[in-house]
Order: sequence, then structure tokens, then C-alpha cells
Amino acid sequence: MTDTPHAAPEAAPRVAVLGANGKMGRRAVEAVRAAEGLELAAELGSRDPLTAVVDAGATHVLDLTVPDASPDNVAFAVENGLHAVVGTSGWGPERRVALEARLAEHPGVGVLIAPNFSVGSVLASAFAAKAARWFESVELIELHHPAKLDAPSGTAVRTAELIGDARAAAGVGPSPDATERDPDGARGAVVNGVHVHAVRLRGLEAHQEVLLGGPGEQLVVRHDAFDRGAYMPGVVLGLRTVASRPGLTYGLDGYLDLG
Amino acid sequence: MTDTPHAAPEAAPRVAVLGANGKMGRRAVEAVRAAEGLELAAELGSRDPLTAVVDAGATHVLDLTVPDASPDNVAFAVENGLHAVVGTSGWGPERRVALEARLAEHPGVGVLIAPNFSVGSVLASAFAAKAARWFESVELIELHHPAKLDAPSGTAVRTAELIGDARAAAGVGPSPDATERDPDGARGAVVNGVHVHAVRLRGLEAHQEVLLGGPGEQLVVRHDAFDRGAYMPGVVLGLRTVASRPGLTYGLDGYLDLG
Amino acid sequence: MTDTPHAAPEAAPRVAVLGANGKMGRRAVEAVRAAEGLELAAELGSRDPLTAVVDAGATHVLDLTVPDASPDNVAFAVENGLHAVVGTSGWGPERRVALEARLAEHPGVGVLIAPNFSVGSVLASAFAAKAARWFESVELIELHHPAKLDAPSGTAVRTAELIGDARAAAGVGPSPDATERDPDGARGAVVNGVHVHAVRLRGLEAHQEVLLGGPGEQLVVRHDAFDRGAYMPGVVLGLRTVASRPGLTYGLDGYLDLG
Amino acid sequence: MTDTPHAAPEAAPRVAVLGANGKMGRRAVEAVRAAEGLELAAELGSRDPLTAVVDAGATHVLDLTVPDASPDNVAFAVENGLHAVVGTSGWGPERRVALEARLAEHPGVGVLIAPNFSVGSVLASAFAAKAARWFESVELIELHHPAKLDAPSGTAVRTAELIGDARAAAGVGPSPDATERDPDGARGAVVNGVHVHAVRLRGLEAHQEVLLGGPGEQLVVRHDAFDRGAYMPGVVLGLRTVASRPGLTYGLDGYLDLG
Repeated sequence: MTDTPHAAPEAAPRVAVLGANGKMGRRAVEAVRAAEGLELAAELGSRDPLTAVVDAGATHVLDLTVPDASPDNVAFAVENGLHAVVGTSGWGPERRVALEARLAEHPGVGVLIAPNFSVGSVLASAFAAKAARWFESVELIELHHPAKLDAPSGTAVRTAELIGDARAAAGVGPSPDATERDPDGARGAVVNGVHVHAVRLRGLEAHQEVLLGGPGEQLVVRHDAFDRGAYMPGVVLGLRTVASRPGLTYGLDGYLDLG
Repeated sequence: MTDTPHAAPEAAPRVAVLGANGKMGRRAVEAVRAAEGLELAAELGSRDPLTAVVDAGATHVLDLTVPDASPDNVAFAVENGLHAVVGTSGWGPERRVALEARLAEHPGVGVLIAPNFSVGSVLASAFAAKAARWFESVELIELHHPAKLDAPSGTAVRTAELIGDARAAAGVGPSPDATERDPDGARGAVVNGVHVHAVRLRGLEAHQEVLLGGPGEQLVVRHDAFDRGAYMPGVVLGLRTVASRPGLTYGLDGYLDLG
Repeated sequence: MTDTPHAAPEAAPRVAVLGANGKMGRRAVEAVRAAEGLELAAELGSRDPLTAVVDAGATHVLDLTVPDASPDNVAFAVENGLHAVVGTSGWGPERRVALEARLAEHPGVGVLIAPNFSVGSVLASAFAAKAARWFESVELIELHHPAKLDAPSGTAVRTAELIGDARAAAGVGPSPDATERDPDGARGAVVNGVHVHAVRLRGLEAHQEVLLGGPGEQLVVRHDAFDRGAYMPGVVLGLRTVASRPGLTYGLDGYLDLG
Repeated sequence: MTDTPHAAPEAAPRVAVLGANGKMGRRAVEAVRAAEGLELAAELGSRDPLTAVVDAGATHVLDLTVPDASPDNVAFAVENGLHAVVGTSGWGPERRVALEARLAEHPGVGVLIAPNFSVGSVLASAFAAKAARWFESVELIELHHPAKLDAPSGTAVRTAELIGDARAAAGVGPSPDATERDPDGARGAVVNGVHVHAVRLRGLEAHQEVLLGGPGEQLVVRHDAFDRGAYMPGVVLGLRTVASRPGLTYGLDGYLDLG
């Protein structure tokens, strides 16, 4: 066993997709096949043995499985010197600390864990957070299909947290609001000091709009995800980049040169 | 005293502005002066006697005063055969019934009472109501400056009522919504079955967006009022039209040929 | 042969889909199957004989074929007392006049020819045309996927024609425009007096936005078609309604109670 | 004469406004008066001698004059150890090189020259440029009042240049576009490879929207300037910050911690 990746950086990544039978997995298999500079080495379902990854000569693992399986999958990849891109949820701080300890023993291996693979969504959140300190007011509207169970969305909560933290760090006070009467809750939820509104509408998929206002001006950062295809460019970017970023990267924004 | 208007329809309306010193009044005085085909006959403040209207040879009264004064002003106009356009609030059903009785005795006189003089806002509400029965989902977002005391806005409430009534009349069920968890009220207020969201943002004035969604499509009707100038075209339209519409018209939409 | 529809109005329409193997046809077959109150009687490809429609006991024909075949299909339907809903293009004035002559001999039969089956799109165009006379300025932006060959879109051209005609009929002058220097054509196309802008963007499908502006205010009517599903509610509405509207109706707006 | 600013950084800047009688100047005088931590030291019209700035004990100069006067004003400020914030146009590369030479002799003095003082507009352009390389498609729509003489706007041209340069630097090809027929120029202008559309509409002031699209997703960065008040927070930010940034800064983005 060696910490050196099986392939030099200039060789095409050979990707094993774990969770290849799920909705995201099937899209990812297509995306890897279609992406210039990537090769599909293996497709594994939940019953396939991980050793098939090594047998197939993979250099990269794409983990799109379930929270219970993901840590073992990633550990296996790291121990075998394979880079990993992870879209499975459930990677809280504790799991990440353990993974970083393991990666310290395999210094050439890179892992990317991305709670959100939509490049546009990640950029939108980052821009909103950067802009938040420069405006008196900021509010957030998220809009989703009506089958969604939670309000507001997880992405909206994370964005509001980034915005609120950025404003607090810059010493910006709360957004002005003279509301005295709101008997039915039209002003929405307040997350980390930011008003968040959730719309549910047939025809929509996943959309988010951050409104920032100052005297005489407004800045709007909006992201629309029309279908799952929105996540594939981020997956491909992750697979192309992870070998050159040893250690753990949490969040796709680390790969987007946001400066 | 006569029921015949002082001027034949083809003559230019001669307008007396009541409440000429208020914010709306001052804008209206300018608008009447600038409008082709209208003449400014008189500007009255709250202490000026109503007889000055007749002395000035006015054919039309524009009432932009206060709820306590408006009924007497309009009664005076009708009794003197003057047409009236009214932007003052407070004209509930009881007052309107009394006014209609008075107008029945002066069959040539027209009165327009308009809760909203923005042509765009009135059209937006009418379009939203017409469209509402054809979509599975409908929600409403209103956005205002942060000094506003009420949420949602009166216009939003009226629009939601029109929408809900139109859907009920057509037998359309509630908008689909699978929300199970919304601990902080992100889904907003529900007015007549319609979810209504209120945003407060520095830089904005008065804006409203109705979102209608069906499988694979969305219709959005949005109105922006950037400043009080938004109300002047409606005031001018009212003054130009009221003489040709005897009796009481409630709502500017009655003049907009919405069919 | 009889002009009486095979089914009384209260019976469920039994629908034969012509062109059932095309993209729209396959979606329509699904939509008819799923729609409450409609029954799928037959699916015909381009080689199937039209007599199969009668053999299947159909009461309605849905024609989603090609311009060369559509007139014969509709003639067959009318002669057999079947109502027809037509989404095929190519029905210019000459063809429609001939069809109306035929329908005059079959007074109980209804035909709907719809250049656009998206309820939202049809409403958006109708609203824009109704609103156009009340604003100084109006412009149109259409946005489509980058594989589209024509700019502007046919829907945009039709909407601009409706808008321009409505303004001309009301005696409204051209939108104000002080542009003196526009070396690269940023102001876009002018269609019937209306500036039309065409955006081509990966990720989008078919979208249109009409902007209407007056002093201090803006009205925006936007329609988004995210996928072909957008056309199915209009198809279903047509099939449910056509039996109660004898003769030829051109355009889905005739069924939308726009007043 | 000394290079040491008259006031220590912690003292409140004492601001002399040059061009105080122009539209921007009058707004700036109000903004400086209202801003916490700034003091208004002097208001100069075009005929007032520059020595009045020194007589008034100013530590900062705000130049809102005309291109012919601005270089002398700034030179005077630098020679007298005063920091300068400049909103006057006409500062091309040649003038800036000369100013940098002068500043090299006065190492404690800071000058900010800002072609655009709207914080929101500057952020919007910066975000669009950062995002541009991550999307297949990008187009730009600018919308202005109908009295504007040029199309597209200067801000739109600068934004398109930033976007095109960023894409070229990252090796991103042109946005996909299959358009074959566009007889009337609906696709707009092409600036540095970016399609730019210019809308002129009564009621609007100055607005810009950058649309970025990839498979299944869209990112929209929109800025609205509703009135001249939009520029004042940037002016105030410049005055508060310039003393801590010795030398020449070109563009407000240098002060916005965009990383």
C-alpha cells in the first residue's frame, strides 16, 4: 500500500462511482462518461464489494451512497491511495476530524466533501455572504417544488448563517424593520438574524434569491436549479481537481478560486 | 342647482384639487397642470371653504383629503353637479351605499373612488385574479421599504382575496404543499388560502409579485412602484374619464377596459 | 355519418391521439391517460389508417402530426362528427377559411387550433396586450436554450404584434427612446414598434418577459416554460372544452374566459 | 508642506467637497453631513479658490467636478498632504500614471478614483466576472430610463469586458449559440464576446442583470440603482477608508475586501 496516487496528475482520472444505481448515481455515471478527461472505471451498487474499485484500476472514488456507508467507503479509498469526491450527506464535524487524522497518514491523497455540488448555488451563497456587510438590509427567498417537506431549505439555512456571520464579523447591525402588526406571520422565519421566506410552487425545482438593499439601490443574487443536471458540472470539477488538492476540502467553494 | 355638468364632455375638465397641500396633493397639482386636456381650476387646503370650488368654475373635484372630510366634500361636489375623483381612504360599504343614493338624484354626475391609483398595480391584481384558476399553485410576495408598519400590505391582502375568490368560484382546490416541518414560519401568512410573504428592504418602495405555477411552467405578474409618481397617470385617467361614467365607480379597474 | 358527436357532453371524451410517437405525442398520451374525465381511445402513428379512430369509438381527435397531414386529419374528424384539438403548425388563414366552410355543414362539431398550448404563455401574451395601451414604454425580452435557430422566437413576434396593434388601436405613440449612439445594435430588434431582445443561455428552456413602464412604475409579465409538460394542461383543457364550443376556435385564449 | 496627513487616522476626516453645486455634489454634501464619523469642512463651487480647502482645515478632498479641473484639484490635495476621493470621469491611464508618480513623493497620502460609486454595482460586476468562467453561457441585460443617449451603458461595457477577459484567461470558449436567422438584430450587441442587450423604459433608472447558465442551472446577478442616493454609501466608504490606503487605488472594489 502506498500514499502515492495510482496515476500521475496528468493521467486521466479513472473514476469508480459508488451508489451508481441511485438517482444522482445514474446521472453521475453519464456525466463521467461524457466528460472530457475522465474515464469511468467502475459502477458499484450497494451490494458490490469495495475491492472491485481496486480491481478496476480506479484512481478516484465518487461516493454517492448513504450516510451509514460513506465513512467506510472513504476510509477504504484513502487507505488505498485513491482520491475521493463525496456527495453523501451526514459528514458532521466529528466525522471530518476523524477523516483528517486518517488523511494525515496519506499525505498525497485528496478528499472533497461537498454538501452542494451546484457550482451556481455555491457561488450564489459565497457572493451573498461577501456582499452582506455592505448593505443595510438583507433578506432571503427560497422557492421549491411543493413536494418538499422542510421549510426553509437546508441551503437557505446555510446561506442565512453565512450572511448573518459575515454581518456580525463586520459589526453590521440588524436589517431595519418597523413592522408593528403582522398577525399571520407574513414576515417569515428569522435565521441568524436574516428573514427567510419559503415559497412552494408547482413547476419549480430549487431556487434561491438573496436581496440586499441600501439607500437607492438593490443587489439581487439568484440561483435556479432546474433539474439534477445542475449538480454534474460540480461533480466533474471535483473529480478533475481533487488529486491536486491533498487533504480534506469541505465545500466546493474551496475549488472555485473565490479568493 | 342642476344635475347637468357645468361643462359639456368635450370641454376640458376644470379641476379643483382638495387636499392640495398634502404629499399626494402637491404631486396631483403638478400632474393636472402638466396633463394635456386638463385645467387646474383651484387648489384648496383644509381650511379653504368648499364654495371656492364653485367660484373657480371647476367642473371636477379631486379629493385627496382625510377620511373624516371626504364624504362632505364629495356630497358637495355631487349636489353642485361636479364630477369627483376620490383618492381618500375610508370609503367602506356603508358610505358608498349612501353616496349611490345621492347620485341617483343627480343622474349625470360621475364619481370614481379608487383605493389604488396605480394603473400598473390595478392591472397586476386583475391579471393575477384572472389567471389564478388556471394554475395548481399561486403565492404572493410583497416587498416594501422598511418603514412600513403593517405586514402584509393592504394591496397584498386585497390581491390575495381576489385570487382566493376566483379559485373558489372556479372550484380549484388549495395549492399543493407537502410541508411537514416549518418551525420558524418560513411559509409566511395565509390569506384567503393564498400564502403571502412580506419582504422589508432599504432601497425599495412598493412592489408585488404573484407567482402562478403548473406542471413545467410559471407565470409571474410583478408590479414595481418606485415613487408617488406611479399614481399620477391613474389620477389623470380618472379625471379624463369620470364625466363619461355617471354614477359611482369603485376601483380604477372599472376604467381600464379589462373586459 | 352524423354531425352529432358520438358522446353526449356529459360523457367522458374518448380521445384518439394522432402523431402519438412524436415527442409531444408521447407526452400527450400520458397526459390524456392521467387526466380525470378523459379516456384514451387510440394512439396512431403516421402509418396507421385514420379509420382506426372510428373503430376505436373515439369522440375526439388530438392532432399532433405534421403540417402536410393535419388538414386531412381534421377533415376526417369533422366529417365523422368528431371534435378535434390541433397542435400542429401550418394552419394559416387560407386553411382556416376552408375548415370553417366545412364546419358550417357540421354545426355540432368543435375544432380548436392552438399555436401555443401553454396556458401561462397564452395568458401572458393576452395580459401584455391588454396592458400595453396604459404605459408609455413597453419592451420584450425572450430567453431560450442555445440550440434555437431563430431570433426572436415566434411567440415573441406574435406577442409584439398584439402589443403594437393594441397601442395603435388606442392611439398610443411609440415608446420614448433618446438613443443616439448604438454602434453594435444593443437595442435589439423592432417588431411592430416594440423592441424585442433575444437571450440564448444554456440551462434555460423557453421564457418571455414583457416590461411595461410609466412614470415611477413598472409592470412585468413573465412566463417560464421549463419543459414540454408546460403544454399538457392546455391540451387537456382543450379536450375537455372543445365539444361545448362548436365551430372553429383559433387560439387557446378563446377558452380562457379572458372577457 | 508635509506628507503627514493633517489628522491622525483615528480623528474624524474633515471633508472639503469640490463641485458642491452639481447634482452629485449637493447629494454628497448631505451625505457627508449625515455620516457618522465624517465632518464637512468646506463646500467649493467652480469659482472658489482651492486654498479655501486648506483654510478650512480639511484633511480630505472629495472631487466631484469636471474632467478638465480634476487633475489640478487632486494634485493640489496631494501636495498639501490631503487624501482625495475622486468621482470625476476622465482619469485615463496617462493621468493615473502621472498621479502615481506624484504620490510616490508623498507616501502617506491616499487617493481613490472610482468610475462607479455604487457599492452594489461594483460588487455585481466583480461577482459576474468571478462566476463567468464556471458557466457555459453568459449574457448581459442593462435597463435604463429612456433619456439615455448611449447603448449599451458604460457600466455594461466594462462588465462585459471583465467577463470576457475572465473567460479568456480561464480558457473558456464562447457561449453556445445556434442562431441561424436573426434578421432584425434581436440578439443584441456583442462586447468582448458577450451578448449585451439594452432596454429603455420609462420608470426605470439604471439596472443591470448578468445571466450565467449551465446544464440545468442559472445564476443571475442583478443590480438596481433607483436614484442618485445609490452612490452615497460608496462615497462615504471611500472617505472613511482612503487615509488607510496610501497611494492610488483605482476602482471602489479595491476597498470591498473581495479577496
